[in-house]
Amino acid sequence: MRLEILPVLGIGHVTEGDDLAALIATAAPWLRDGDVLVVTSKIVSKAEGRLVDVPADGPDRLAARDEVLAGETARVVASRGATRIVQTHHGFVMASAGIDASNVDKTRLVLLPEDPDASARALRAALRERYDLDVAVIVSDTMGRPWRNGLTDVALGVAGMPAIRDHRGEIDPYGNELHLTQMAVVDELAGAGELIKGKCDQVPVAVIRGYLGATRDDDTGARALVRDASLDLFSLGTAEAHAAGLRAAATLADGPGPAPADPAAVDRAIAAVAEVVAPGTVFTHVTDQEVRAGLVATVPGWPAEATGLVLGAPPAPVDPADLVRFGADLQRLRTALAAEGVPSALLSPPPGSTACAALAV
Amino acid sequence: MRLEILPVLGIGHVTEGDDLAALIATAAPWLRDGDVLVVTSKIVSKAEGRLVDVPADGPDRLAARDEVLAGETARVVASRGATRIVQTHHGFVMASAGIDASNVDKTRLVLLPEDPDASARALRAALRERYDLDVAVIVSDTMGRPWRNGLTDVALGVAGMPAIRDHRGEIDPYGNELHLTQMAVVDELAGAGELIKGKCDQVPVAVIRGYLGATRDDDTGARALVRDASLDLFSLGTAEAHAAGLRAAATLADGPGPAPADPAAVDRAIAAVAEVVAPGTVFTHVTDQEVRAGLVATVPGWPAEATGLVLGAPPAPVDPADLVRFGADLQRLRTALAAEGVPSALLSPPPGSTACAALAV
Repeated sequence: MRLEILPVLGIGHVTEGDDLAALIATAAPWLRDGDVLVVTSKIVSKAEGRLVDVPADGPDRLAARDEVLAGETARVVASRGATRIVQTHHGFVMASAGIDASNVDKTRLVLLPEDPDASARALRAALRERYDLDVAVIVSDTMGRPWRNGLTDVALGVAGMPAIRDHRGEIDPYGNELHLTQMAVVDELAGAGELIKGKCDQVPVAVIRGYLGATRDDDTGARALVRDASLDLFSLGTAEAHAAGLRAAATLADGPGPAPADPAAVDRAIAAVAEVVAPGTVFTHVTDQEVRAGLVATVPGWPAEATGLVLGAPPAPVDPADLVRFGADLQRLRTALAAEGVPSALLSPPPGSTACAALAV
Repeated sequence: MRLEILPVLGIGHVTEGDDLAALIATAAPWLRDGDVLVVTSKIVSKAEGRLVDVPADGPDRLAARDEVLAGETARVVASRGATRIVQTHHGFVMASAGIDASNVDKTRLVLLPEDPDASARALRAALRERYDLDVAVIVSDTMGRPWRNGLTDVALGVAGMPAIRDHRGEIDPYGNELHLTQMAVVDELAGAGELIKGKCDQVPVAVIRGYLGATRDDDTGARALVRDASLDLFSLGTAEAHAAGLRAAATLADGPGPAPADPAAVDRAIAAVAEVVAPGTVFTHVTDQEVRAGLVATVPGWPAEATGLVLGAPPAPVDPADLVRFGADLQRLRTALAAEGVPSALLSPPPGSTACAALAV
């Protein structure tokens, strides 16, 4: 077994309405059944007319580009300076939604194909029907990634083979069952194709020959590679998630949780704010058991049905400004509790008991 | 130009102290100058003795594994359930620090090579000195990534070629200068090698033949692929960054910023908490200009040197519990201001003015 990666030379400039199947079949009469075609998304976009006119330069160009980007964006994932990492309507997370200004006239921007899986299926079908070729097609693009410098080519669309090769359940030679080894082979194939395509030299198609598993009818598509944001540990940029935490703190909802709070978590939260609250202010965690045992008798009137309480008081003597500061410190504690996953509520004090406050947790 | 990807068959089990150069040169007498060897990190680790003994199963195994993981971890990036995404001492961000229990006895774990670039350099040097072969060497491993399902093989170490191919400054056929096109070619080569290696079939080395740019002396290594966390928009998991935001809110430092706050940002913060503060509590942004113009004369005694103020008061009549709640609401507003990037400080009210409070922003 061996693989070959071959360039398809001589395709030239592609424009709207071009017949990609004809261009490729003519440029590569040596194509065979079982080959995997890695097709740069840009020529797919151009053939499909996914271009927009923009001014060649100046602030008008930037404004037009921002508008195009907004149209291609399902949600913003992260931004810093002029960089925008967004999730596209396809579900891909990419800088600038994959909008590209290279290898195109200065007055145009190239958008990603509207449905790259459909583009791949259409090209595969055309090559099969009109040229009697049974090939797999990958529509590829260049992406960055977190944590590692440098870009790689990955698959936006695929037809004629599954996006993922699943090794789960296989047994290694030592008798261990393999876990977590679903390989994104179409991304590796797309990257392999890039090695021969280059960026400027008009080789928009590479052919990978000898890959087993290609050319079955599999319509799952590259869509199978899109991880749902709810399952992703990095669904938001770090700065954006940090700011969301601050916003959550600002609008913290009232209400203790349905279950008694973990005492260790409450203690950690109290410790976390100990240095920043007004000198002399002390918070004490009173557990459910202590409430039932009557240990909170010094503060008559607090609701005994609470699953737990944190009691606190500003240092005496208390004047109105101290009460304002004390309230701010209570809110700090509520936020520290939230960071530990412990919901809380500021309780209204019983009549006549004003220098002391309680959080239900 | 074309590339070939060839498997190196017959290497068999590798154990500590094995001479990888001899194993590879013997198994692949057909190697040539200019070839790129993609070597699975696991056999490098095994040859280098990067194995630890652990119980074959049970809670002792889990405890031992956790201890090994802690030793390999520079920092935890994200966790959910049993999943730990960590940054290793090399700088790589990987699940479980790349510790692997597959393709090894059940009583051992395989750690990553201690210095994969050095491993690659040593193997390249041995093949050159003892077998007169001038090849590039990539030490590869399998990694997951955010946003996309499936794993791919990438480079942990490299010798004999640069990790990145830099297209910046090249001009495309339309006259556009290429930006942002530093391609992580060693990752693409590692992924290409995986396509032929498989997971269970004892093909730990692939050879890529025909890649231009290989086999120069370049000692930059795969270290060049590690992005510094301070430059990374995803340096922490979303949940971790969100919790860090909550903790930051709990311990918010006092102090207005050095520059006047953006009035729009202050207005957004006030709007963000409007729904959650006590009914009747109103916050008003008083700008520097208004302070200088004497418009805050209704609150005599507030420091006029502040760059800006947010004034607020609890609804009358005011009792002590209202002041505590008002303090909590002020802290909510401070947090909302922080989410907008606006630092603030709770000001001590002037003597005699107790029902009103101010934040300096």
